[in-house]
Amino acid sequence: MKVKAAIRTELGKPLVIDYVDLAPPKANEVLVKIGASGVCHSDLNSLNDPTLRLPNILGHEGSGIVVEIGANVKSVKVGDKVALSWIPYCGVCLFCKNGQVHLCETAFGPIFDGTLLDGTSRLSKDGETVYHDSVLSTFAEYAVVSEMSCVKIPDQMPFAQAALLGCGVATGYGAAVYAAGVTAGSTVAVFGIGGVGVNAIQGARIVGASKIIACDLKDQNLEIARKYGATHTINVGKEDVVEALKELTDGYGVDFAIDATGNTNATVSAWLGTRRGGTTVAVGWFNPNKELNIPAKAFHRQAKTLKGSLYGNINPLRDIAILAQLYLDGKLLLDELILEKISLDEINNALDSFHDCNCVNVGRSVVMFE
Amino acid sequence: MKVKAAIRTELGKPLVIDYVDLAPPKANEVLVKIGASGVCHSDLNSLNDPTLRLPNILGHEGSGIVVEIGANVKSVKVGDKVALSWIPYCGVCLFCKNGQVHLCETAFGPIFDGTLLDGTSRLSKDGETVYHDSVLSTFAEYAVVSEMSCVKIPDQMPFAQAALLGCGVATGYGAAVYAAGVTAGSTVAVFGIGGVGVNAIQGARIVGASKIIACDLKDQNLEIARKYGATHTINVGKEDVVEALKELTDGYGVDFAIDATGNTNATVSAWLGTRRGGTTVAVGWFNPNKELNIPAKAFHRQAKTLKGSLYGNINPLRDIAILAQLYLDGKLLLDELILEKISLDEINNALDSFHDCNCVNVGRSVVMFE
Repeated sequence: MKVKAAIRTELGKPLVIDYVDLAPPKANEVLVKIGASGVCHSDLNSLNDPTLRLPNILGHEGSGIVVEIGANVKSVKVGDKVALSWIPYCGVCLFCKNGQVHLCETAFGPIFDGTLLDGTSRLSKDGETVYHDSVLSTFAEYAVVSEMSCVKIPDQMPFAQAALLGCGVATGYGAAVYAAGVTAGSTVAVFGIGGVGVNAIQGARIVGASKIIACDLKDQNLEIARKYGATHTINVGKEDVVEALKELTDGYGVDFAIDATGNTNATVSAWLGTRRGGTTVAVGWFNPNKELNIPAKAFHRQAKTLKGSLYGNINPLRDIAILAQLYLDGKLLLDELILEKISLDEINNALDSFHDCNCVNVGRSVVMFE
Repeated sequence: MKVKAAIRTELGKPLVIDYVDLAPPKANEVLVKIGASGVCHSDLNSLNDPTLRLPNILGHEGSGIVVEIGANVKSVKVGDKVALSWIPYCGVCLFCKNGQVHLCETAFGPIFDGTLLDGTSRLSKDGETVYHDSVLSTFAEYAVVSEMSCVKIPDQMPFAQAALLGCGVATGYGAAVYAAGVTAGSTVAVFGIGGVGVNAIQGARIVGASKIIACDLKDQNLEIARKYGATHTINVGKEDVVEALKELTDGYGVDFAIDATGNTNATVSAWLGTRRGGTTVAVGWFNPNKELNIPAKAFHRQAKTLKGSLYGNINPLRDIAILAQLYLDGKLLLDELILEKISLDEINNALDSFHDCNCVNVGRSVVMFE
């Protein structure tokens, strides 16, 4: 079928709105009519990432309706409303068998190689292969995806809000709830108030943390953090954040810190700001040329934990459904994350807006489809 | 009472064998007739540690018989055989309430300040205070200790073997079993084959790890590691340890790594040698002037965990008793850890032997009392 899409044809250049050919779903695959697709800061990174094959179609936050299923598909049926997960999983690899489905070996290659799980693409143009992104490609009217990328959600869940669940919301929530394991009554610091950070705050709030301390360079972001559940804020440009965290926790430091900045120095501050036996989760993606430098004396007798996290250590099939229900129950804020609803034709403006903004973007532009 | 002891009278000088005065146990304290005391490499560090007050009595691995109990003591009675724990715990501080009794706030000061839990010493000489070490001081015929330092063990447990349980054995075993959480069938690397390392190997063996890979600079130590349960060995001076670990694990890296070297470079190698989603535990004490430098690209998409550990994250009352039973059941090797049995008068020779040895000491000299 012919599908209108935003095509990445050249490294770092604006996406081209044009039609591509989409092949039908193979076994264990699903054809989804896209309802909405979030525009994530990662899309800007992908636009400029020379390791991603060209041409390809970006978009890894989406929702839609199942319109066709391939052979063997059992968990969704035609007409189901679904949110999409950019990490599907096989269930049988070393990582899945260890309960770490977010690290699935079967998915890991294709996610970054531009194919679906079988190593091939369903997308083409004029007979030439067009590659997927994150085994999805939601910047298009339709997408063929793995069954394991499809999370059935209630019909009353709106497309735009549902589209956000599968990336920043799940990652931030999971970083707090699963990677850090925030507990009721505990103290939590969240570094970096962006799309991931505010959802780490929401995760901490939902599981009953007593103090949720937002740490950022911008007062404007700190104000936003309070809307999502931050009880205290620290402007790390104006205060010594480690000392300030200790002051807020009877001198101990926080039980849990989640660093969503992708800045190695912030991760070290987060580590230093946790109490003896505390846990720091680094969920941002570091510049690979940097080093994480932890002073050994900060290790001494401290018995602290540092965890890297990918996708918030969630199980997407379980947790994206939980997040949808939390939204419908009024417990998870999502409406506030939608900055604007745009058409696919306006997508380059949305990507440009990341350039124009010198702050971390908390909210999202969401592409709406007919 | 007058008690013969090895007294540290000057920084870095040989211990002086002489009599000190030992006051009776206060409430929640116990007088223990020491049966045996291990000589740990940490004692050599303490001998030369300017932060530890003088004069004091070292010795933090011990066993004995309860000969008197203070008011309110409920968990042991006169005549009980006990192993001693250098970390007692209060049960009511922030750390204890969080299940991290090995980080007990009440104990943390006194352990390093040379007193018992109430901030005072039971030791004196000629009317002048003599300080404790690690809330114990087992280089003496008798010791007054906290009830919470006393772990009741079966009568048939020999003193010398029991004396070893409370430090290196518990730390190594706990680093594998509790801090790392080694699981049956998993793959484990242990860096640094000393008193802690061989017991990390034993812990991994006891909980059923499938591959236990000893990593050390000395072939002699690697041979010793096999006795304790290592299934594979890597000489890190002769092989690229990260590559070798991957070769032994189908290219993935190990599930768990325990670094008992106290060397930050080894910790980084351990991190690099674990698989995506793997866990590294650093249980050695680093030189506080060093840094732990983890390349950010080794974080990227890896979702690994790094944990500092103190005392193997054990609950001493539970785990030292478990370790005694494991020994009596033939599942935990301890006899092999006793290099020699000596009298208190020979203790300086035992401390000197650490100087003479340019390798990590796997075994111990054990001071035996009448």
